[in-house]
Amino acid sequence: MASIKLVGIAGSLRKASTNRGLLRAAQVGLPDGAALEIADLADVPFYSQDIAEKPAAVARVLAQIGAADALVLASTEYNYSLAPALKNILDWASREPDNRLLAGKPVAILGAGGGMGTSRAQYHLRQVCVFLDLRPLNKPEVFANAFAGGFNAAGDLIDEKIAGHVRELMQALIAAVAARR
Amino acid sequence: MASIKLVGIAGSLRKASTNRGLLRAAQVGLPDGAALEIADLADVPFYSQDIAEKPAAVARVLAQIGAADALVLASTEYNYSLAPALKNILDWASREPDNRLLAGKPVAILGAGGGMGTSRAQYHLRQVCVFLDLRPLNKPEVFANAFAGGFNAAGDLIDEKIAGHVRELMQALIAAVAARR
Amino acid sequence: MASIKLVGIAGSLRKASTNRGLLRAAQVGLPDGAALEIADLADVPFYSQDIAEKPAAVARVLAQIGAADALVLASTEYNYSLAPALKNILDWASREPDNRLLAGKPVAILGAGGGMGTSRAQYHLRQVCVFLDLRPLNKPEVFANAFAGGFNAAGDLIDEKIAGHVRELMQALIAAVAARR
Amino acid sequence: MASIKLVGIAGSLRKASTNRGLLRAAQVGLPDGAALEIADLADVPFYSQDIAEKPAAVARVLAQIGAADALVLASTEYNYSLAPALKNILDWASREPDNRLLAGKPVAILGAGGGMGTSRAQYHLRQVCVFLDLRPLNKPEVFANAFAGGFNAAGDLIDEKIAGHVRELMQALIAAVAARR
Repeated sequence: MASIKLVGIAGSLRKASTNRGLLRAAQVGLPDGAALEIADLADVPFYSQDIAEKPAAVARVLAQIGAADALVLASTEYNYSLAPALKNILDWASREPDNRLLAGKPVAILGAGGGMGTSRAQYHLRQVCVFLDLRPLNKPEVFANAFAGGFNAAGDLIDEKIAGHVRELMQALIAAVAARR
Repeated sequence: MASIKLVGIAGSLRKASTNRGLLRAAQVGLPDGAALEIADLADVPFYSQDIAEKPAAVARVLAQIGAADALVLASTEYNYSLAPALKNILDWASREPDNRLLAGKPVAILGAGGGMGTSRAQYHLRQVCVFLDLRPLNKPEVFANAFAGGFNAAGDLIDEKIAGHVRELMQALIAAVAARR
Repeated sequence: MASIKLVGIAGSLRKASTNRGLLRAAQVGLPDGAALEIADLADVPFYSQDIAEKPAAVARVLAQIGAADALVLASTEYNYSLAPALKNILDWASREPDNRLLAGKPVAILGAGGGMGTSRAQYHLRQVCVFLDLRPLNKPEVFANAFAGGFNAAGDLIDEKIAGHVRELMQALIAAVAARR
Repeated sequence: MASIKLVGIAGSLRKASTNRGLLRAAQVGLPDGAALEIADLADVPFYSQDIAEKPAAVARVLAQIGAADALVLASTEYNYSLAPALKNILDWASREPDNRLLAGKPVAILGAGGGMGTSRAQYHLRQVCVFLDLRPLNKPEVFANAFAGGFNAAGDLIDEKIAGHVRELMQALIAAVAARR
């Protein structure tokens, strides 16, 4: 059983998402005892106060988040801000008593997109983290260009330089988890 | 038939939403010839490139947006940023050829929420408008406190001072539509 | 005498500033009747309410701003936000009665910097424009890499592609001035 | 000699600054062994790469920052963003080799201003902290209304509720310093 549990969440829902590709890359080369599960947002509905009972897909992802020592957020950017699916699961998670799923947890942020590599969405995400009391790493920031040959048609990361940045980010995240214990 | 058509979109999906209450307040006292329709996001799914055919609920709201001279965006704030449902319909709308549903249209932004009246989400929304080539009014900014007695249990706006700000905003929006013609 | 007067302000104070180089590039190829003056911030002190009398350097730049039909802001980025010198002259300008130097004026934003071309600072500047009731163009956004051979040692723009973007921006600005009249 | 050294910096330069008043309030009730020095920015010039030798006022404040275990930033807001004087000293500090004055240091952010208590400027400051590798506390956020009787004419904080928030913030900051050792 993993002694350091990470959960990865990507903002894009499409099958060949490069942001989910970044999360798969983040699974490679983790140290022994660390494991990264990738959340599946496919059936998670929009949060609404009118939904009396937590849908099963929500409960499943929230359980993953709750069990995790840290979050890896692949911040798809649409129109200069966050992808709704990523923001939405954080909104669901924020509704648990005492912010117990999120409070104080380290976060690694990365993203693949146009020329600026989702940077605009990432700064919005960092503001969200203030309220959620999440602790995003400052460095390294990972801004991957999704349209410059770094990913294959299935969304897999095939660029070694970006892969190196992702590994560096994961090392920093695991160090933050260790420091917090 | 209205000579100035406005479409109002609120970020919150719940029935008693105060942000939809703000939109209903915006319908009151419009000048002759101007009309504000409120979009229904209930069945709009998350945008994904994998969805080959536009769902009916999406097509319906995009038709309203396309027919409108200007947008009224009630910017519910969750966790210091935009409500996913509002961002999501803008993401859908942005996928039309030549940005033809949105380009150049004036936008009125308002919101009801905690003590800061959704201001954090509103500035994120303004950044989204840059890419979408929407033209948000600078003033007045409408930041309504949803928890200080200004709304009834159904989400209706009952505070005369806020109602005055909403009217002022709608007048500025209509002037912007007229100036653009 | 110019029938369309523009004032250009750069955030960096150094002599070989690439952002001032962008402003010089913006002076090239303006249509007949349009002229762009570049403001000199060298002796402008930090704004303080305790300064009873407006310093001469401040009065001079504010007169240029007041006479201008539109602003061209070259948004140097330091540490992911605005260069203080640019923000400071806007703060001085904002203190005039009825916001008469700025209200409603079109603004062109551009910048030269690291790989993201000052985009982070530019979005902060756009938020400042909301309060100042300035009207920044949405497009084109000009993000110039200052470290990729596009500028010479004196800060002059020598990259034809970026120069084309700057010309396109100036055309859009002049169109906005014309539309406002 | 203090075993926990803090440096406080306010964005406003005026004598009766309420933001400097917040820093004085932060000095009250610190635990034994902790001390907060307030930096004086009066003679700090705008940063420019052309300034060959560090001015004395800059050297003095940078020495205070370098000696400090953590920073207390009173984020005056002008026109929806940072006061130039605060941003400017951070820009100066960022130019030291290896970011040695700032890297990894905890930061407490607070501010006094209009109805939103400088929140807009504070989120810009938080983005600056990402690049500077500063570690701002998420909570408590301190947003003080400077125009509601909470400060006297000299800028002293006289509101007990706000003073309580400031104390809570300082306790969190000191805990962060301790956790880092």
